[in-house]
Formats: sequence, C-alpha cells, structure tokens
Amino acid sequence: MELSIQKIEALSNQILEKIGVPNDEAKIITDTVKYAHLRGKGTHGIGRYSIYNRKIEENLMQANTDLTVISDSGTSIVLDAQNGFGQVATYKGMELAIKKAKEFGMGAVAIRHSNSFGTSGYFVDMAADENMVGILFANSGPAIAPTGGNKPLFGTNPIGIGFPGGNNKPNVILDMATSNAARGKIRLAALNNEEIPQGWAIDNKGNPTTDANEALKGSMVPIGDHKGYGLSLIVDVLAGLLTGAAFGGDVNRLNHKDKISNYGHLILVMDIERFQTLTDFKTKMDYLTRNVKETKVEQEIFLPGESSYIRQELAKGVVTLTDKQVELVNNLIDKIQLSNDLKL
Amino acid sequence: MELSIQKIEALSNQILEKIGVPNDEAKIITDTVKYAHLRGKGTHGIGRYSIYNRKIEENLMQANTDLTVISDSGTSIVLDAQNGFGQVATYKGMELAIKKAKEFGMGAVAIRHSNSFGTSGYFVDMAADENMVGILFANSGPAIAPTGGNKPLFGTNPIGIGFPGGNNKPNVILDMATSNAARGKIRLAALNNEEIPQGWAIDNKGNPTTDANEALKGSMVPIGDHKGYGLSLIVDVLAGLLTGAAFGGDVNRLNHKDKISNYGHLILVMDIERFQTLTDFKTKMDYLTRNVKETKVEQEIFLPGESSYIRQELAKGVVTLTDKQVELVNNLIDKIQLSNDLKL
Repeated sequence: MELSIQKIEALSNQILEKIGVPNDEAKIITDTVKYAHLRGKGTHGIGRYSIYNRKIEENLMQANTDLTVISDSGTSIVLDAQNGFGQVATYKGMELAIKKAKEFGMGAVAIRHSNSFGTSGYFVDMAADENMVGILFANSGPAIAPTGGNKPLFGTNPIGIGFPGGNNKPNVILDMATSNAARGKIRLAALNNEEIPQGWAIDNKGNPTTDANEALKGSMVPIGDHKGYGLSLIVDVLAGLLTGAAFGGDVNRLNHKDKISNYGHLILVMDIERFQTLTDFKTKMDYLTRNVKETKVEQEIFLPGESSYIRQELAKGVVTLTDKQVELVNNLIDKIQLSNDLKL
Repeated sequence: MELSIQKIEALSNQILEKIGVPNDEAKIITDTVKYAHLRGKGTHGIGRYSIYNRKIEENLMQANTDLTVISDSGTSIVLDAQNGFGQVATYKGMELAIKKAKEFGMGAVAIRHSNSFGTSGYFVDMAADENMVGILFANSGPAIAPTGGNKPLFGTNPIGIGFPGGNNKPNVILDMATSNAARGKIRLAALNNEEIPQGWAIDNKGNPTTDANEALKGSMVPIGDHKGYGLSLIVDVLAGLLTGAAFGGDVNRLNHKDKISNYGHLILVMDIERFQTLTDFKTKMDYLTRNVKETKVEQEIFLPGESSYIRQELAKGVVTLTDKQVELVNNLIDKIQLSNDLKL
C-alpha cells in the first residue's frame, strides 16, 4: 500500500503516545522510522510497533527511556538505557559522542540495557551532518554461528559508518549487517511466504536452505565466511561485552516471547577537522566519487548510502508498506483502541 | 626450507642495515617480520626485502623513516612518514595513539606518505598488550573494483582489530582483508604457478578466474560483494583520504615499478578501563570464549588470532620459507654484497 510519509509520521506519534512513550521521545522514534521507510529499509519501520507494544505490556521493555549516565571520563561515556527504546538511547548517545568529539577530537558512548534501534544509518548520518565520522556497532539476537559451529551465537550485528560526501552530495552511509543478507529481509520473506536466495542461510543442522522459516531457525551465513564470523564476534565484544550489555549468545532477539533483550551499542565519533579542513575533505570526496562512477560497465555505480538517498528524493514523500505491515499496523490500532479512522 | 627465527632475525637486521635502515628502525621492522613468519603470514615477511631494496635504490622509498608531526590536537595526531617504512611509522604511531588513549580515553593517529607495514595484527596486538582496543585501517594498491565496475580502485585494505582475550588467553586479533582472499596469497600462488580457488578473483574483463596471473591483472572479489566494496571504500577514505595519503585509485602498490606508494594508515585506540574494569572484561572474555568453543560440530573453533597464536607456540622458533622466498633472499644477499655465509 502506498501512503504519505506524513501519514506514517502522524500514525507513529499517535501509536507511540498511546502506548506510553513520552512525547519528545516519540518524536525521535518517529523520525528514525520515517528515515527507514523513505530509504527502503521498511523492515525496520512501523511494522515493528506491535512488538514494542507487546513487550511494554508484558513489562519486557519500558515505554520511557530513562537514560542514566554510569560513567563519564575524558572522551568516553557509559549510559544505561534501562530497557527503554534503542532509538532514543542511541539518538541521545550520538549527540553526546558528537559533543565529546568537538571537545577532544573523538568521543565514545557505550550503551547497555538497550533494545533494537532500527536502522544504524540514521544515527551515523547525524554525525556526518556535523562533519564528523560516525561509527556505530550494535549487537542483536543470536543469528550467526561461529564458523565450524552449529549454534547461532552472534547477531547480524550491524556496522554503521557515516561521513560527509563531496560538495552538494549526500553523506556516505555504510549500514551493513555482518551476514550476507539482513535478517529483516529473511523475516520479511517468511512473512510473505517467499523463498530466499542460496548463500543467505543454513538450517539448524548446518545445511544450506532457501526456506525463510528454516533459515530463521538456523543460522545466517556471514560475509566472507570466517571473516564475517570474526567481525560478528568483534562487534559483539565492542557493542555488548564492553558496554555492559548482554553478549556471547545471551542477547535476546527483539521479538523474544518472555525475556528482555539487553542489546548494547557502541558509538565512536571523530572530528574530521582535527585531520584536515572540511573544504579539502569534500574536494577529495568529489574526486573519489568521480573515480568510482567512471569504473562503471553498464549501470551507474553508487557510493554507500547514495542509492538510499536517491530513493528518498524520488519517493517525494510517498512510501510503500507490504500487506503484512499494513495488517500489523491495523491490528495494533484495534488492540490499543486507537480511532478506526487511523486505519490504513 | 625450515630455519630458526633467530636466523631470520639476524638476516633481517643485517640486510636492513646494509640497505641503509638505521639500527633502531631495523629492529622494529625485524620484529614485525618475525611476527609474520611465526604466525603463518610469511607472505608479509623477509621475501619482501628485495622490493624494499629496489625501491630505496631507485629513490622510490626512503631507508630511514623521518616521521614528522603535521598536527597534534586533543586526541588526534597527523604524522607524515616521508616515504619511509610503514612498519616504523605504524609502530611509532601506535605508541602515540596508546599514549593519547591513556590521557583522554581514546587516541587517533593518521599517517600519510607511508608504505606497506606488513601485517596489521602486529600493531593492534601492541594495543591489546596495553589493555586497549586497537583498530587499524590501511589502504593499499588498487585490487578491488567497485561492484558493477571493471577497474580496481581500492586495495584489499586490511582491517586490524585487537583487544585482550580471557584470563591466560592470547589477545583477540582480527586481521582481515576486505577481499575474499588476501592478495599476498594470490601473489604467492602466482610465484609458485598454482591455481587459486573460484570466488577469489575476476579477470580484467570481469569474468571469474582461477589463474593467479590473470587475477593479479583483474580484481579481487570483496567479501559479501557490494558490502565488501562499501567497506573497501570506507577504509580508503579513513586510511587514505582523511590522513592526507593517496586514495581513490591513486595508491601505488608495494612493488610498483616507478612510482612511490603513498599508503595511508589510520590508528584508533580506546582504553577499555574507561568502560569497565579489566578484571570484568577478562572474566567476560572467558565466558564468551567458552560459549564459542561449545558450538563446535567437529573441529575446535578458534577466536580471531587464536590459531595464529597457537601456530607460533607450536613452531618453537622454527619457521618455513617457500623456495621462492629463499631464492629472493639469496639473490638479495648477492645483490647487496652481504657475506655468502648468510645465504640460506
């Protein structure tokens, strides 16, 4: 279903406020969800609100994000999200990391006891907008087995890296899972009863599978096999173990039936102007961009994040939800007794 | 050929001093080369000295590394290696980054006008030994084409990440290229006239190849395809563009016939104890390690860097050079008129 981003925005704010999210925090979450829908990452969008609602009702997640400072020393801050929204914790954490980087040159913010924050691109984009390099590591529910192992231990642990692009160009935004495919894509395929490509996943006996439901019970295949296992482990340590969150297989996935998630996030920010002028940086990015474009064989080559940005420009404020997402939203509207007029 | 690491050490120091490397700098380079040979990364070892010698003779590289501070602001330092040895610049840069991290919590050292530093594991191991997280990005000669492109623009751009392991355990050391295979492995296969596996490389028309020589003329396949392209580009920006080194296809590979390389490196260090006590960190690493080991189906599963460490322990100071490496060393001994007694 096609609908306007204004409709998503209004609906998001109303749902979040109804389920107890403070107004200013709802605005943050809504903004990240708009970004996800506009940039083709709708699996991280409003379709997830029914999960948040259930978890809040069952006391597996807090509607308000009572972010507490555990320590603040030099460049480095440790925050406790107290089981609130990952989006709110990461947004505020990124603001603090940027502030530290302005003061010292670099900043690090570690966040424990958090939840899924949606798409990491949103947050590193904030750093890029401030002429910083933003790096965001996050762990997530077990999905990847160590190479040679049969039990998923690590999440698809997204790595986000962002910085400014060339003059009048969008920020460069890498937002990648350490698996060949994003788990959200497999979940979406399962929702829509679609097959998944070979190479995305193995079943719980370690055999390759194209069945999305079997894949969700098994493990995702990491990029570059043992390299992706190594990367996933490293991200689990940086985002989970180091921050004081769960790690090593103990993170519970977003939609776990009866346990809190305890995700961790680690934000690193560097001030570009401690290395060179922004003018030089952007001029060089123009040169790099030109060189990349010139290698094309047939279709235009994009820098990381560029095609998502163009998608947003071309969308002109209109986004598409899958039938399943529409159904999830409409059911939630019934469940929390919002007005029928809001239904999609 | 099997030989003792003491023999490599003595030979290395004598060769380096003969070709004009100052004594204290030769010791640093030798130590990195010992590490490479002992940990199964012999492609980054003493076999490369004939390249260094040629480049120094042809004024394409400086025998002494006259490391100059370009700027020093808060956490962040920019160094110019003035076309000396990458090993020396990165060793000294890592020392400075660790010092900054002790002072502020984090440190960043950007190095421009450098050369290949060998294996990145050596340097992030230094940070781990100081109870820090060490991250090292480096760019290198064009080897990877952007996804959809036909011209290699980015190096296999190694990413090194290291931190302490559990109690009485080796440091965790990730040292990975952004390609499915390390370029050194393809060079070695070409030297030995061996085929390479499918999936490692494409030829210069974009077709998959198992011919190592065709692969060297074409492009390496990045891990996770477009993800690896994105990662390679990001590393090129962080290690090359941001540091003031060459980037965007302008880095010249180690063995370029008539141009200087102008590699760049970016070192990031974080003090673990700004986030939690080292005791907690190591206890948690024990738990993570146990969980990883327990997922095994048949063979033992190792943490990143663990099998290289075990290899070093088992080697008991004896390493193996390929016939080609022996030949390169012996020819170099002739060329620079070192004593015949030193020949392998």
